[in-house]
Amino acid sequence: MEPRFYHDLRLGVLGGGQLGRMFLRAAIDFNVRIAVLDPNSAAPCRRFCSDFVQGDFKDADNVYDFGKRLDVVTIEIENVSAAGLYRLEEKGVSVYPQARIVELVQDKGLQKQFYHQRGFPTSAFQLVEDRSALAAATPALPAVQKLRRAGYDGRGVQVLADASALKHAFDAPSVLEAKVPIAKELSVITARNAQGAVESYPPVEMAFHPTANLVEHLFAPADIDEKVGRRAREIAEALITELDMVGLLAVELFLTETGELLINEIAPRTHNSGHHTIEANMTSQFEQHLRAVLNLPLGDTRMKSPAVMINILGAEGQRGVPYYKNLEAILAIPGAKLHLYGKAETRPMRKMGHITMLHQDLATARQKAREIQQQLAVEAVD
Amino acid sequence: MEPRFYHDLRLGVLGGGQLGRMFLRAAIDFNVRIAVLDPNSAAPCRRFCSDFVQGDFKDADNVYDFGKRLDVVTIEIENVSAAGLYRLEEKGVSVYPQARIVELVQDKGLQKQFYHQRGFPTSAFQLVEDRSALAAATPALPAVQKLRRAGYDGRGVQVLADASALKHAFDAPSVLEAKVPIAKELSVITARNAQGAVESYPPVEMAFHPTANLVEHLFAPADIDEKVGRRAREIAEALITELDMVGLLAVELFLTETGELLINEIAPRTHNSGHHTIEANMTSQFEQHLRAVLNLPLGDTRMKSPAVMINILGAEGQRGVPYYKNLEAILAIPGAKLHLYGKAETRPMRKMGHITMLHQDLATARQKAREIQQQLAVEAVD
Repeated sequence: MEPRFYHDLRLGVLGGGQLGRMFLRAAIDFNVRIAVLDPNSAAPCRRFCSDFVQGDFKDADNVYDFGKRLDVVTIEIENVSAAGLYRLEEKGVSVYPQARIVELVQDKGLQKQFYHQRGFPTSAFQLVEDRSALAAATPALPAVQKLRRAGYDGRGVQVLADASALKHAFDAPSVLEAKVPIAKELSVITARNAQGAVESYPPVEMAFHPTANLVEHLFAPADIDEKVGRRAREIAEALITELDMVGLLAVELFLTETGELLINEIAPRTHNSGHHTIEANMTSQFEQHLRAVLNLPLGDTRMKSPAVMINILGAEGQRGVPYYKNLEAILAIPGAKLHLYGKAETRPMRKMGHITMLHQDLATARQKAREIQQQLAVEAVD
Repeated sequence: MEPRFYHDLRLGVLGGGQLGRMFLRAAIDFNVRIAVLDPNSAAPCRRFCSDFVQGDFKDADNVYDFGKRLDVVTIEIENVSAAGLYRLEEKGVSVYPQARIVELVQDKGLQKQFYHQRGFPTSAFQLVEDRSALAAATPALPAVQKLRRAGYDGRGVQVLADASALKHAFDAPSVLEAKVPIAKELSVITARNAQGAVESYPPVEMAFHPTANLVEHLFAPADIDEKVGRRAREIAEALITELDMVGLLAVELFLTETGELLINEIAPRTHNSGHHTIEANMTSQFEQHLRAVLNLPLGDTRMKSPAVMINILGAEGQRGVPYYKNLEAILAIPGAKLHLYGKAETRPMRKMGHITMLHQDLATARQKAREIQQQLAVEAVD
């Protein structure tokens, strides 16, 4: 295998947000030149990439024009033009994850059908075209309705508790899922290179924000039975292999109260549930993604330390230039690792950064994370 | 204390080499804008800083013009214009390390006199003006002759074994040191912020290249008696406090065969003997330097894992575009962490990168490091 990455290999990333930024940070040590496409001229990646192209990653022409002179194109957000990716593949550019994976993941209905057809465990579901079709389907309630397209960070998902909720159902193509009694929400990040090598991280446990429906805390490793952990990794590894996918895949799983593991959804990219790997594991998810898309040997996924990850979210009612309240006090806590994303504006519940709290004892890390959460706030400078 | 770093604080670094590059990498997470001054338009920092200024950091006007609009100026190399730094201080720019520290460290004679006058342990020495003064001083031989100025990475240092060597002595102002029987060479990196808080890393042990006189391997932690380790940290902390210095200070020490600790030399900046801290410690030396110069709380210096650091040096006789031989095999070794510096040209013994080998058992890490060393080579592409 030709070791290409020390040459003038050109890698491009669609999306210039925090995931791209942490990817760039990891790629510095591998000395890879990276170009970034993002519509926002003040994107978090702007200052750290070799070449920043302002443009719309949802536009096929923009994606094609950006990628056509590159060797490898990858993503940090799945909401990109799959058509543009297909055209790049036809031109001979290595697109990882592949265009068909991105297309599959953009449609939660296709995702569910894939699990069902290939025998992967997932909750019972039906696809409905609109609100009236949903009502006509007389689903067992409570149920979860998910828009097939354009859901992100909890948007486009709602619980239909009883019949009275049906009139508020999304009036668009959606997946209607049985609401299963969940003991824990887990995530396994797995990676695969073009040679077919696969490596997974130990499963982590996600705690969601009570209203915003996005990850608020992450506990690594997950407090689960060893057998359950092994099974979760097996599911993730079988899935990435069945998908014949190259790159990093985050597999979110429900552990039900009866001990079943069900695939909730997947993201074929670096993921919020892997941020702790920067400090807590031998290889960060960002380096692992780079290794996977460059067809390098995959890195060691073992943990160096238990960790709790805390998302730094914009405070309610605050919008403007961010002010990180009590950040200095938090920097004084041994084992608290700061990551700011460099966003120019804070908005309610916007992901502005994260903190990874390392401690040999996970219970202590959880306690310190709670203290951090109580102190930290992202407000707008007046 | 005003938490400044989330505002438009402007930080400048004199020097754009690998130390600056790893510093920039650490600073991304603190969202600090960093400008870099370096004469080389292809400097390793070039692609990762907010603002790259091509210019000579040894020139007082260049340094002043670069720094005059910044809030804080720091260094990644001590061979910069101290006159320029003094002018910046007069203008009110925070210069860390301070101009007088840089000036002191640029002269090995002044350094030795400082240790002597302030009661810090160091080997016996005398200052000589030139070769004939050296001969006239009839030094006890063997002795070590060090040029007072412009020595770097082993250049400007030689052993005078016996009287016949005197005719090859450097004909310039130098320090003549007694050659002490050395059991180990240690390094302690310590940091101090403007409030006077001090934190040190556990001492490490350096193994030098047999001919090039630069660090080839580094073992962390040092295999020394706990009491010796405590004493080494105490010396480093007393020294940075006595210097009233702000920033990071690497203190290289001899542990003599009789168990004495003697200061060899110091560097008021991030240092080759601290590269392992990126993965092996809770806070990297680069983040610690940032915390110190921004007057933030200093980070936790505890180790997460034992480590061996291997410098990746340009092969003898090879000069040109670098090719990293067997790098993919090395990337497959669990716990081997790669850092390439992005230098455009390899030259004999040039520092092109480093690898940190992590293993819970330091002896195993040493063994794996030897294997890596045997495989890895930096050659020039023909």
